[in-house]
Amino acid sequence: MVNEFMISLHDINTTDNLAGARAGEVVTVSGMIHNVRVTKWGGFIILRKACGLLQTVVDNSESKFFDEQGNQIAMADLCREMAITITGKVGDAKIKDPAVYYNTIELAVQEVRVLSRPTTAEVVDMNALKFGDEETLLRYKFDNRQVTLRNPRDMGILKVQSTIAKAFADFLSENGFTQIYTPKIVSEGAEGGANVFKMDYFGKQVYLAQSPQFYKQIGVGVYERVFEIAPAYRAEKHNTSRHLNEYISLDVEMGFIKGQEDVMQLEARLLQHIIKTVSEKCAHELNLLGATLPVLPHEVPAWKLSEVHEILWENKLCEADHRGEDDLAPEEERAICKYALDTYGSDFVFVTHFPSEHRAFYAMDDPEDPTLTLSFDLLMRGLEITSGGQRIHKEQDYRDKMIKRGMNPDNFRFYLDTFKNGMPPHGGFAIGLERITACFLGINNVKECSMFPRDINRVAP
Amino acid sequence: MVNEFMISLHDINTTDNLAGARAGEVVTVSGMIHNVRVTKWGGFIILRKACGLLQTVVDNSESKFFDEQGNQIAMADLCREMAITITGKVGDAKIKDPAVYYNTIELAVQEVRVLSRPTTAEVVDMNALKFGDEETLLRYKFDNRQVTLRNPRDMGILKVQSTIAKAFADFLSENGFTQIYTPKIVSEGAEGGANVFKMDYFGKQVYLAQSPQFYKQIGVGVYERVFEIAPAYRAEKHNTSRHLNEYISLDVEMGFIKGQEDVMQLEARLLQHIIKTVSEKCAHELNLLGATLPVLPHEVPAWKLSEVHEILWENKLCEADHRGEDDLAPEEERAICKYALDTYGSDFVFVTHFPSEHRAFYAMDDPEDPTLTLSFDLLMRGLEITSGGQRIHKEQDYRDKMIKRGMNPDNFRFYLDTFKNGMPPHGGFAIGLERITACFLGINNVKECSMFPRDINRVAP
Repeated sequence: MVNEFMISLHDINTTDNLAGARAGEVVTVSGMIHNVRVTKWGGFIILRKACGLLQTVVDNSESKFFDEQGNQIAMADLCREMAITITGKVGDAKIKDPAVYYNTIELAVQEVRVLSRPTTAEVVDMNALKFGDEETLLRYKFDNRQVTLRNPRDMGILKVQSTIAKAFADFLSENGFTQIYTPKIVSEGAEGGANVFKMDYFGKQVYLAQSPQFYKQIGVGVYERVFEIAPAYRAEKHNTSRHLNEYISLDVEMGFIKGQEDVMQLEARLLQHIIKTVSEKCAHELNLLGATLPVLPHEVPAWKLSEVHEILWENKLCEADHRGEDDLAPEEERAICKYALDTYGSDFVFVTHFPSEHRAFYAMDDPEDPTLTLSFDLLMRGLEITSGGQRIHKEQDYRDKMIKRGMNPDNFRFYLDTFKNGMPPHGGFAIGLERITACFLGINNVKECSMFPRDINRVAP
Repeated sequence: MVNEFMISLHDINTTDNLAGARAGEVVTVSGMIHNVRVTKWGGFIILRKACGLLQTVVDNSESKFFDEQGNQIAMADLCREMAITITGKVGDAKIKDPAVYYNTIELAVQEVRVLSRPTTAEVVDMNALKFGDEETLLRYKFDNRQVTLRNPRDMGILKVQSTIAKAFADFLSENGFTQIYTPKIVSEGAEGGANVFKMDYFGKQVYLAQSPQFYKQIGVGVYERVFEIAPAYRAEKHNTSRHLNEYISLDVEMGFIKGQEDVMQLEARLLQHIIKTVSEKCAHELNLLGATLPVLPHEVPAWKLSEVHEILWENKLCEADHRGEDDLAPEEERAICKYALDTYGSDFVFVTHFPSEHRAFYAMDDPEDPTLTLSFDLLMRGLEITSGGQRIHKEQDYRDKMIKRGMNPDNFRFYLDTFKNGMPPHGGFAIGLERITACFLGINNVKECSMFPRDINRVAP
């Protein structure tokens, strides 16, 4: 009666026996049929694995095919998106198609067993898609994301996304940061403003968290250094290639800092680790996507906002004179990144000391000039990929700034209570996962870096 | 004008130079004052670090104290929840208090520098809290979670929670699973039913995802094996010690399985890894919490639901005769776990083959008896910690089952389209992070295992 089973690592079902396989070995692998090409003598079955494609060669006189019931069938009965298991002999090969992951081997098919099959004759074939313009193509891809994700290019993008997130978590865990999980249903909005999704929660109005800002600061009072990887929500009504209404926020907060430089150094070192990891683990994907990873040198330039205006004007790198302006103009973002690359060989630029009135209330004002803040943006290749800085850590400083801004401190009871009970000097930053993925890969539309993008018009699939 | 800074791992600010410190060394550490005890000759400052407490000894004739401005102050000016930096000489010690992490050393204080201070004389002191009953204590703790989290016991619980999640991710990444990030704003509810939070999304009604079920299945068509760590939402109106309205779901889905046994073996092996990791990395926390990790032997019993009824009745282990019932009674959950522990030395029991009408529509029916499903629950110490099983992978089987249940297949267009385009046999499971943490630690109320619990009455802090 008792149905026992043994637990051992070897018992975990494997779909892939190709690791380390040598020419002449017979192996069995499972995957989806990505493509079938029939020739006179047999043909090719291109098998899709999680890592990419594998070429297998059919020889009519050697290869046998079986359906789900074990009945013999013909190669012509195979079709795209069948789940199959192939047994075959490994042979050497030289394959140029960048979508083929195993480009130095191929399998000589001995036997194919069909495990399951599509129920339409019109399986989506991403490789054959030809549209007049990128917008139409993207709409089609997003409308059918449940299947178009199987296209090697999209698989590659999300593989890089996943690798970035894991490198982020691994680096921080190694450096004394604790990963936390904070609520996305909240009663107080961190940034405030109109861009917040409202929801009924058992008769009470609540919000979807725009960021874990309050909670990660609280976390610093507990664990000194914390990070979180979680969704964040912005009810932004504009539909652009740079925005998502739901995105993954990589959040960091660090206690016992001496100044915002500690935070910037942490971020630079973290990005260095992420770039190294992606270059090591995603070489296939980078090649497939034609992407070049950004350069982060040992010296990353960091300029004050006012210095950026000056540099660009003095060197005649911008059309307009932006000196005295309280933010970076888009042409300045591009120009200062080009200047940093030309002059310092860096794809990254920190810009610091933004005006207090343009930054969130929790940004610490610069004691030397309280109209400015100890906060920064990190630009990469002309785009802002992160905001960060030192935070206020004294209760009274919060109250003063809130009142100055017309905010009611009573609406932030639990947040202020944190500082009332003592908090170390601290700071942090946040990186949008989809945005940094797009920047790394040179992809124009950030939505392509989300598995199932959400924008003002899209909540499905 | 140019403000450069060097990037190097050594530049990351460290708050802790105690690792490997030996008696006689002078070290500097930062942290929060957890407690101060004044004696005639000086006293003790108990410093709180992320990992736990450190004892430091003040000698009036040797130790000096400075405030934020660098002015000398007295030890009596120190108070709990000040952020400080201590420089002192390492000495050997033998400390019994289980909240003290560094229990073989102490610091002889040379100098204390105050970095910041609380602004209330009534700092929350979790160690001194005495309430008549647990409910009052818990309510107080949750109402003031922004500060009560600093209590070593709660820090320990969430440290274990974080360690479980990381062990989960690391094991699966090592075994060919890709971590995915799927939307929590959805247009179709996976499980359906009333327990779903509704929200307005630019004039359209949407839902908060109850689980990533649809998306992780889609992920299998892309990456063969996927996992996700993300919030899940249940609008359950009952307020019990076992439920949270927002919780962290550890989700796994695995393609190319031979049957649900592959999924069960994966889960058992995964849990084995998690238990091993927690025992290695959280020895301090387990000791502090008085917790004993569950035993997962090399043979974990797995019985059909009908077999469980039989075993318990035949061995007279339940009061009532539950044979023929279509679910496990709570007394059966406890009894079969006790039986598994007594007979097989296992704190875990798989129960399989639940009736089809009690499981989600995507559960695969048992071909040998279509009234049953190829699905399982995993029980641990009397509590269900996971549900899983093999899923349907044929479009027509979905349609048939939906229609039989009065569901409209047209409402599941993108989901069904996935199977129409071909899907391998697959299955998976989900583990509630807070629930498994509670089970591991022997904590009665699952809310204690959430950093900021959400229940029908609570959306703050």
